[in-house]
Amino acid sequence: MDDRLTIDPAAAAWLQPHLPPPAPASRRPFVTLTFATSLDSSLSLAPGVRTRLSGPESKAMTHYLRSRHAAILVGVSTVLADDPGLNCRIAGAASHPRPVVVDPHLRWPVAAQDKVLQLCREGKGLAPFVLTALEPAQVPAASAALLHGLGGKFIHVPSSASADSSGRLRFQWRDILAALQAEGLASVMVEGGAGIINSLLHPACQDLVDSVIVTIAPTWLGRGGVVVSPERVQDDSGVPVPAARLSSVKWHPFGEDVVLCGKLQK
Amino acid sequence: MDDRLTIDPAAAAWLQPHLPPPAPASRRPFVTLTFATSLDSSLSLAPGVRTRLSGPESKAMTHYLRSRHAAILVGVSTVLADDPGLNCRIAGAASHPRPVVVDPHLRWPVAAQDKVLQLCREGKGLAPFVLTALEPAQVPAASAALLHGLGGKFIHVPSSASADSSGRLRFQWRDILAALQAEGLASVMVEGGAGIINSLLHPACQDLVDSVIVTIAPTWLGRGGVVVSPERVQDDSGVPVPAARLSSVKWHPFGEDVVLCGKLQK
Repeated sequence: MDDRLTIDPAAAAWLQPHLPPPAPASRRPFVTLTFATSLDSSLSLAPGVRTRLSGPESKAMTHYLRSRHAAILVGVSTVLADDPGLNCRIAGAASHPRPVVVDPHLRWPVAAQDKVLQLCREGKGLAPFVLTALEPAQVPAASAALLHGLGGKFIHVPSSASADSSGRLRFQWRDILAALQAEGLASVMVEGGAGIINSLLHPACQDLVDSVIVTIAPTWLGRGGVVVSPERVQDDSGVPVPAARLSSVKWHPFGEDVVLCGKLQK
Repeated sequence: MDDRLTIDPAAAAWLQPHLPPPAPASRRPFVTLTFATSLDSSLSLAPGVRTRLSGPESKAMTHYLRSRHAAILVGVSTVLADDPGLNCRIAGAASHPRPVVVDPHLRWPVAAQDKVLQLCREGKGLAPFVLTALEPAQVPAASAALLHGLGGKFIHVPSSASADSSGRLRFQWRDILAALQAEGLASVMVEGGAGIINSLLHPACQDLVDSVIVTIAPTWLGRGGVVVSPERVQDDSGVPVPAARLSSVKWHPFGEDVVLCGKLQK
């Protein structure tokens, strides 16, 4: 089956200013935060429930974005819930992005039948780099051998108190990006899930984000969904203020969805 | 001060198919549901906190929409939180819409200095119709005299169990619309707040909505905001399904915001 996707050249030109430059700055990877939500800002109907939100046009756009980044980053909850392929299906793409899984406690029981590994064996994607707080000696030998055999690996990242008070992400974003930098990955597309996105939208991390690209589908999933909404921010007198605002904003309809590009105001 | 607003004729033409027809059907008013949210679907930072979300272009659009409806409807919480003007400031508009306040328990202590009444005295708006479950004899005489003197009134609507399980709205939407129909109001723009909007997005009420127009501002307000997200909907086997989806979707950037027009799928 030919499952390659194509993107309208005009749409690609429209996206161009929001993508990593050819020669990115060397101190850390170029970070693009991108995800698709419902009108009520949900990624899915419930935790662990894969929910098809965006239409074919914006799906092709996502794969085009992947073709323009060295790496795709997701949290382990997304891997466990969705069994995602994390490859690039855009027609004519020169290479696949490196899947990066943020998995501090190593909850992912890496297995040969996982879709990302299947695609890798078929030459349709790269093997993942798994960022974990576990020391190399603590990683199950079978998992390590499986990943290594396909070109992937486990990477130890120091665990520390997080800027995100939810307690779920135990890494600092600076440590994550330093690990990617050390691997020569010059750009990364952060795709989810909600814990990952919300932590990156926190004011303490906003200066690490170079570009934001959000797809919105014309659906309300209803209460109880997995919601993108950053931690509340208050001014010095305890009055709530907006947590994050985009500047240099552009909107573009893609089929029934809309795509928003912008930069986080620092 | 000239505070009149103008709308780009091209934008007005774009909105035309989503507005009440010149001769609407007679069984009930044409209902347009319209509101502005953040990217995380919040109307405001916290209950009772007025939050400026949309920019000048989409604000002018809202006033243009008001010029095209016979009535504007808001819940009493919005009146108490925002002291809104509920008039139409679009340049050249022939008339003002009738403000309608849904106030089952009559929580609004109507007073001469309320902005909506001030504007009415200045000839810049109409006096409100207040829909309440109270019997006429229960309405404070001073409030009734104040409203009547300006051309407004209290209208008794039968109270009943609501389709919204939140318990906040004690009216049935069919009773509200019947009351407007009895007053000869052929179209109504439902503007908020969250309780009003979420109840109208419930599957039991979606067939009462003719047009949906949502403005989205490129801001995340953060957790704790007043959120538009309808009650969860499940299929027969208890699996959550999307609560509401729009069809005939169109998106249009208005300044930094985007405006979405569509119809609720029945």
